[in-house]
Amino acid sequence: MSGTTGELFIVASPSGGGKTTIIRRVMAAMAELGWPSFFSISHTTRAPREGERHGVDYYFVDRPAFREMIETGEFLEWAEYVGNFYGTSRAAVEAQRAAGHDVFLDIEVQGARQVRERVPDAVGVFILPPSLEVLRERLVTRGKDAPATIERRIRIATMEMAEYHRFDYVIINDRLDEAVQALGAIVHAARLRTRRREPLAQRILESFQSALVEA
Amino acid sequence: MSGTTGELFIVASPSGGGKTTIIRRVMAAMAELGWPSFFSISHTTRAPREGERHGVDYYFVDRPAFREMIETGEFLEWAEYVGNFYGTSRAAVEAQRAAGHDVFLDIEVQGARQVRERVPDAVGVFILPPSLEVLRERLVTRGKDAPATIERRIRIATMEMAEYHRFDYVIINDRLDEAVQALGAIVHAARLRTRRREPLAQRILESFQSALVEA
Repeated sequence: MSGTTGELFIVASPSGGGKTTIIRRVMAAMAELGWPSFFSISHTTRAPREGERHGVDYYFVDRPAFREMIETGEFLEWAEYVGNFYGTSRAAVEAQRAAGHDVFLDIEVQGARQVRERVPDAVGVFILPPSLEVLRERLVTRGKDAPATIERRIRIATMEMAEYHRFDYVIINDRLDEAVQALGAIVHAARLRTRRREPLAQRILESFQSALVEA
Repeated sequence: MSGTTGELFIVASPSGGGKTTIIRRVMAAMAELGWPSFFSISHTTRAPREGERHGVDYYFVDRPAFREMIETGEFLEWAEYVGNFYGTSRAAVEAQRAAGHDVFLDIEVQGARQVRERVPDAVGVFILPPSLEVLRERLVTRGKDAPATIERRIRIATMEMAEYHRFDYVIINDRLDEAVQALGAIVHAARLRTRRREPLAQRILESFQSALVEA
């Protein structure tokens, strides 16, 4: 409808930061407003967790296939994390943006840096846990990791958090509703940027100008 | 609390564009969230309209006083519009921003350009009427101008609207509620910028780092 390119939102946080939940809720609110958006699905070499489906949660591929995608330049970013590979295919992201849809990338911090370098107009959002106690509690409650893995995740999280200043926006995920509203505001504002509004603004301006000429 | 400078929002639109109503409603919503904001009050040489008060709606000054303020560099912007002078005093805006308050400038388009030059980090928002018919109807309904003045305002509006592309954001004021939400999103997003969040983000990061050192 607008004729303009959709935005790419890079949403990064340490593991357990809650970014997936926040993105999904913002996308649901956008759908109600008739704003099309797309959640970028990553490729990964890690084993599917209980209930995860290929092509919905991830594209699950083996290591040789992943390496071949790296070599052919198919990834917008890729990273190794806790012994597994994760990557974002460039083609799907670009097709969605070209169709005017906003795209959300839900990625780890090291991958986010690569995307920022390759897509300079992307909007970077860093989600911070409010405190170490809260992050540890979330990782424990999630029940997916052994205690030693949780402590390792916390050490990695601390290193990753130092990267927040490279992002455009920072959201503290203290209360989920507020974090959802925050990301929603960033998305809404991005849709009001002059570049994005230009086709409509130009149409309105031209209708004024034509009326003046006729008068 | 934050220790960071507040934002300056330059909200411009053609006369009758509805910007004052939109700003006031956004400020009321911000007040409920505990976000301090300040509506910049202009100086003007025009006569007060029915119900307007000095120091609330405008600072009403005579022409010699206005000229002296120009000469002493007290204005962030000033402009002549339909035979009257309007200007924004720099001191009040700077004091509010320094206190961490977001400041709203409700100004004409020519003034907005001067402020953008003098305050490069200001956020520029242009409010467009959805159509000429709607703008004319609003000016007529407002009942403040004679028909000839309304037609003159529409001609000026058309010239001013061509400036929209110099602003960061464009809001089409079709439905008031949506325009209020739009400006609200721009303000909310601005408050989430990394620069603004840095003191809090840094505190959280340091608490993680201290815990790691102790462990």
